[in-house]
This record gives sequence, structure tokens and C-alpha cells, in this order.
Amino acid sequence: MLNFIFHNPTKIIFGKGRIKRIAKEIPKASKVLITYGGGSAKRHGVLEEVQTALANYDLAEFGGIEPNPTYETLMQGVNLARDKKIDFLLAVGGGSVIDGTKFMAAAMPFQGDPGNILETFGSSISQAVPFGTIVTLPASGSEMNNGAVISRRSSKTKLPMTSPFLFPRFSVLDPTKTYTLPVDQIGNGVVDTFVHILEQYLTYPVEGKIQDRFAEGLLLTLIEDGPKALAEPENYDVRANLMWCATLGLNGLIGAGMPQDWATHMVGHELTALHGLDHAKTLAVLLPAMLKVRSQDKRQKLLQYAGRVWGITQGDEDARIDAAIDKTRAFFESMQVHTRLSDYGITKACVLPVVEQLKAHGMVQLGERKDVTPEMVQKILELCL
Amino acid sequence: MLNFIFHNPTKIIFGKGRIKRIAKEIPKASKVLITYGGGSAKRHGVLEEVQTALANYDLAEFGGIEPNPTYETLMQGVNLARDKKIDFLLAVGGGSVIDGTKFMAAAMPFQGDPGNILETFGSSISQAVPFGTIVTLPASGSEMNNGAVISRRSSKTKLPMTSPFLFPRFSVLDPTKTYTLPVDQIGNGVVDTFVHILEQYLTYPVEGKIQDRFAEGLLLTLIEDGPKALAEPENYDVRANLMWCATLGLNGLIGAGMPQDWATHMVGHELTALHGLDHAKTLAVLLPAMLKVRSQDKRQKLLQYAGRVWGITQGDEDARIDAAIDKTRAFFESMQVHTRLSDYGITKACVLPVVEQLKAHGMVQLGERKDVTPEMVQKILELCL
Repeated sequence: MLNFIFHNPTKIIFGKGRIKRIAKEIPKASKVLITYGGGSAKRHGVLEEVQTALANYDLAEFGGIEPNPTYETLMQGVNLARDKKIDFLLAVGGGSVIDGTKFMAAAMPFQGDPGNILETFGSSISQAVPFGTIVTLPASGSEMNNGAVISRRSSKTKLPMTSPFLFPRFSVLDPTKTYTLPVDQIGNGVVDTFVHILEQYLTYPVEGKIQDRFAEGLLLTLIEDGPKALAEPENYDVRANLMWCATLGLNGLIGAGMPQDWATHMVGHELTALHGLDHAKTLAVLLPAMLKVRSQDKRQKLLQYAGRVWGITQGDEDARIDAAIDKTRAFFESMQVHTRLSDYGITKACVLPVVEQLKAHGMVQLGERKDVTPEMVQKILELCL
Repeated sequence: MLNFIFHNPTKIIFGKGRIKRIAKEIPKASKVLITYGGGSAKRHGVLEEVQTALANYDLAEFGGIEPNPTYETLMQGVNLARDKKIDFLLAVGGGSVIDGTKFMAAAMPFQGDPGNILETFGSSISQAVPFGTIVTLPASGSEMNNGAVISRRSSKTKLPMTSPFLFPRFSVLDPTKTYTLPVDQIGNGVVDTFVHILEQYLTYPVEGKIQDRFAEGLLLTLIEDGPKALAEPENYDVRANLMWCATLGLNGLIGAGMPQDWATHMVGHELTALHGLDHAKTLAVLLPAMLKVRSQDKRQKLLQYAGRVWGITQGDEDARIDAAIDKTRAFFESMQVHTRLSDYGITKACVLPVVEQLKAHGMVQLGERKDVTPEMVQKILELCL
């Protein structure tokens, strides 16, 4: 096991009917800005429930945070929050709203050009406005970590940022709030969570037995309950397990003391930035090809994955690895998330621009061994067509 | 899954050579009281390492915190700390030192009789002096939770307390610091951790699939690496896995949203208070009998435990349950922790006094269904002879 620091101070408030207790978590007399996305939080009544719970606070709203939240949109929120002297932010939504709110929390008190926050991947942050979250879409894990991914329209970039100041003070996870999600978003959420886990699990062995078992436990749960979430949208326990999986898949726990990959994510961000393809769909497309091309480097963990997660014990090693990759692809397809670029109308012409963008962003040594070069990415993308 | 709140702000600093960075974690100009136990921290040089790391602080020491730390001893530490105007405590040791330090942290600023803290099981605590820990004995999980168990000689009691104010600010887990532990303490630590996990796992199913998988992952790791820790005392990875198991076994994670038992612990505390039997040994003795007597109530989870943890899939249900209990007992014995009261010279005469003490402490409805009565405990104890 590698040396690590694990510190995650976010308070998780999990279960049915939990929104009504959020006033306990926000300092009295705070001026609260509620942030949200395209309006589903409003349509399905979650926003009203939040407003009722916070009736004794001075409230303002900032809606319209888009999927892959942009600097341009978020700066409107920052200006509004500064004007209204907001001192607490409350994100109501999924990963995009939460990520966007994290950027706002850091940008509001930032001295100088907030664009600098993105350029430094968050390292220039020295303070942030406190914030909480109400999760309506389980996928990103952002509700219990200190990271965010922010896009910038002006430069067609989508880049990650992290800061120790960006942990939510609290996050409310009420599985019933996911009942109204469309099939597309459930599928995306399960795939996103699955790949978050694999980015931390499918590397090389370091005798991190607990982290391995925990990762496998999350994967097995997604495999069992992911399809059920599509078939039985109001099955509480299924939604509860998926929601808790998404959070635990990216709260630092399973990755603590382990080598980590994240090449699939970094390439996926470029695909989203250039083509607008949903984040999870980029992962579903890229991951099988990524594993295929890098199967020698990941050999031991791929064999462990095949055996413990997919129950594949027959055949020689190469056959077991291939079968595990095929099972992974089939699982994504069973979640109704397609796994070829051609499924999304993206052609071979995409390949070189993505590779060029990675180079422009300095992402030329990706993966747990820093050996995923632009040339290798080109080969991987060609396998995704 | 049951509704839950999970909030664990302790910072874990894990790995080789980590003590030297603790000055980063303690506010400058703090007056630090280093607390420790019987002297092994001194003999093995850990205390000196800590003092070197904190050379720029005003330091004091309080040693002699005993196993099953007592109110009487700890109040000497409280008086010393008050005299010296200590504002940070640093526990160097295992669960007893950490638990004792938690009591001191709460008692130092307590208004009125600190005995009240124990009488209210910690609920009268409204503040605590900040503290960190350096773990030398993995077992209790106290380094990443807000609980403690404190004994009182005057009343022959050993009772738990918890408070949201009692999370360590940080805990350093350096597996190399466990290399010098005697066999007896390694065995006790593995058994203690194992039973902590079972108290949260072997109850009744609530579709908490992740919690179940995590608990099983920890148990499998203990089964794999526990015996190796005895055979290869300086195997870093083995010690690292056991240390992280102990912490994750009782940091709130696997119990979040799950019914919990703890009857074995509550009866065990009375055995320790009356007979001085090591905590882990009380658990090793009581657990198999507890599972036998309550096997109907725990039927579904016992079958899951048999299959997933021990790989027992043959035979009818009762046979599988019996085999799983036998395997558990054999595992404890393989860790050189014996599982009969007679192994420790304790006779049938112990039974009624333990039952009477439970009644005196109001512990008459124990377990996840509150159906473990004093009469049932009597039956269980008779099976332990």
C-alpha cells in the first residue's frame, strides 16, 4: 500500500425526507444562494421543498447551470452572489451543478482574475464560501469530494480543479429524489460511477487489499442494481444503493494508498469539449479500448477483476481478460449507454483534434505509469470508432 | 437501507515515516500533553520520535494510562493538564490510551463533576480540548471515531461514551510502529477488529449491499492477513492492511444505515470489569455462543456470512450456519486467542454476577432487536464455560 492522507469532512445526510432538516446545517442569518441547473429541480418540487426548509433565511436563486458547467455561465452567478453579499451556497442538482457551485464558492472571494483558478487547476484557491448540496442525480461523487470539472467556452476546454477548501459542508442524499430521472441519466450515472471506480482499481497491485475489496463491492452492487434501477424506477433500496455507490466511488476512500489512472477521464473531457458528448458516454466509449490497448500493463488487476467481479475463471489469461472487457462493454450497453463513437455520429475525423487538444493541455503522460502518450491515445481512439 | 448521518472529520495520515510531519497538524504555540500507556512507546523509541517532531512546542507528558483506562488514573492526567494549561493532547498508543485521552479532552474543560460524563455516556459533553493520535496498536478503531470506553475502579464499571466533540483532529497510522507488538496483542487486535465488524454486519438484512460488501472485504482481509501478521511480524503490507482494517472496521462507515448489535461488547465489558479479562478475549469467548443462541434471529445474515466470507456452500442451512460459527471460533484460536472461559480460569461462578451487573447498568434489552435479555445472557455465558 502506498502512503496516503485521507481527510473527508463532508457530512452526509442520507435517506428519505431529509431535506427538511437542512436548516440545522446552515448558520443562522446566512444569505443563501440556491444554485440549480436546467429546471428539473423546480419542476419536480425539490426547489420548493428546499425553500420551505429554509423559510427563515434570506434566499436568492441562480438557475441555468448547464451540463459541463462553463466559466462563462458561472461568472454570472459569481457576480450575482457578490452583489447580494451571499455567504452560503446551496447546490441542488447533480455533478454539474455541484461542480459549478464549487467554482463559484472559490471565485466569489478570489482576488484577481478567477480564470486563474482554472489555469492553476485549483491550486491558487486560498479560501471559499461555505456550501452544501442536495443531490438529485447520483453519478459524479462531487457531493463528497473536493474536486470539480469546469469548461470554458472561449477556449473549448474542460479541465479538472481541486482544492482542500472545496469539500461541501454537508450533502443531502435522498434516493426518492432520483425517481423522476430519465433513463438516459440513470444509465449515464451508473457508467460514470463504474468508471470512477475502475480508474482507481484497474492499475497495478500494491497489496491494497481493502481498497480492492471495497472497489469490487461497489462494482458488484452497480452490476446487480444498475439494471434494476431502469426496470423499477421507484425501488427505494436500489436507488439508495446506487446513490451511495456514486458517493463512495469518488470520495477518496477506494483510491487512498493506490496508484490511479484517470487517462479515460482526461481523454473523455476533450471529447466532450470538442463534440458535446455526455461525460459518461465518453467513458463508455473509451474505457473498453483503453483496457484493450493497455492490457499488458494492467494484466494482474484485469485478471483479478475478471475473477472477482465477473466470475470469469475459465480459459487462459488473455481469454479471461478479453472476456472481462467484453462483459464491461455489455454492461454499459445494458444500461443503454452505447460504446462506439459511431453510435453518436462521431467519425474518424475526431481523432487528431482530440490528440492535439491533449497536447495543448500538457496531457502527454497519462495513466498510472504516465505512459499513455498522445500516440497511444490516437490508437485507442481509432479502436473506439 | 436505513436513514443515516455519516460525518467523520478525522484526518488520517497513513504510512511509513509519517510521525515527522505532525507539527503541521498542531497549531503553533500549543502547549501539548503527550499521553501514553505502560511505557512501550518509550521503550521502542516512538515517544522520542514524537518529541523530536514537536521540538518547537512546549511539551509535557502523562504516561501510565492502563489497559481499560480508568477514571481514577485519567483524572490525574486531567489535573496535570489543567495545571499546565495544556491546549492540545497527543495520544501515543492503542485504544486504551486513545480512549483515555478522549475522556481527558472532554473532562479538562468540563464544568462540574467529570464523573457526570460517564454517567451520561458522553451526552453531557459540550466541548473538548483538541487532540491527535499516533497509533501503535491497531484494534480499537478509536483513532477515527468519537467513542471511548472508560472504566471506574470505585464502581467496577466499564461503560461506553460518545460525543461529536471526540473525533481526533488527526491520526498517524504508521504500520512499522506495530512490528514490535507481542503476539498476544496482534491476536487481540485482529479478534477485536473482527468482532467490531460482525457487530455491524451479522444482524438482519436491510438491502445495505455496499455496507455488506465492505464488511465482508474487511473480514476476508483479516482472515488472509491475520495469521501472516503472526508469522511475518515485519511484513509491511500485512501490517498496513491490518491497521487500515482496524480503523475502517469502526469509523462509522460499515455501520451507516445498518442495524447494529453490540451485545457481545456490552457483556464483554462486564466480564472485563469483574475479571480483568482482556477486551478481545471476552469477545472471542462470547461471540460464538452469542451467534449460536441467536442463530434464528440472525439466520439470513449468518448464511450470507457462511457463503461469502467462509466459502461454505454445501449442506443444509443449519449445517452451514454451524460451520460458519465453527470457522469463526477456529480463526480466533488460530490467532492464539482462546475461546472458552475455562481457558482463562473463569468458572461458572462468574455467570450470575455478570448478569446482575448488566441489570444494574440498565443493559436489559441488548442487540439489534433489543431481545437479548439478562436471561438470554445467562444462557450464553453458560455456553462459554
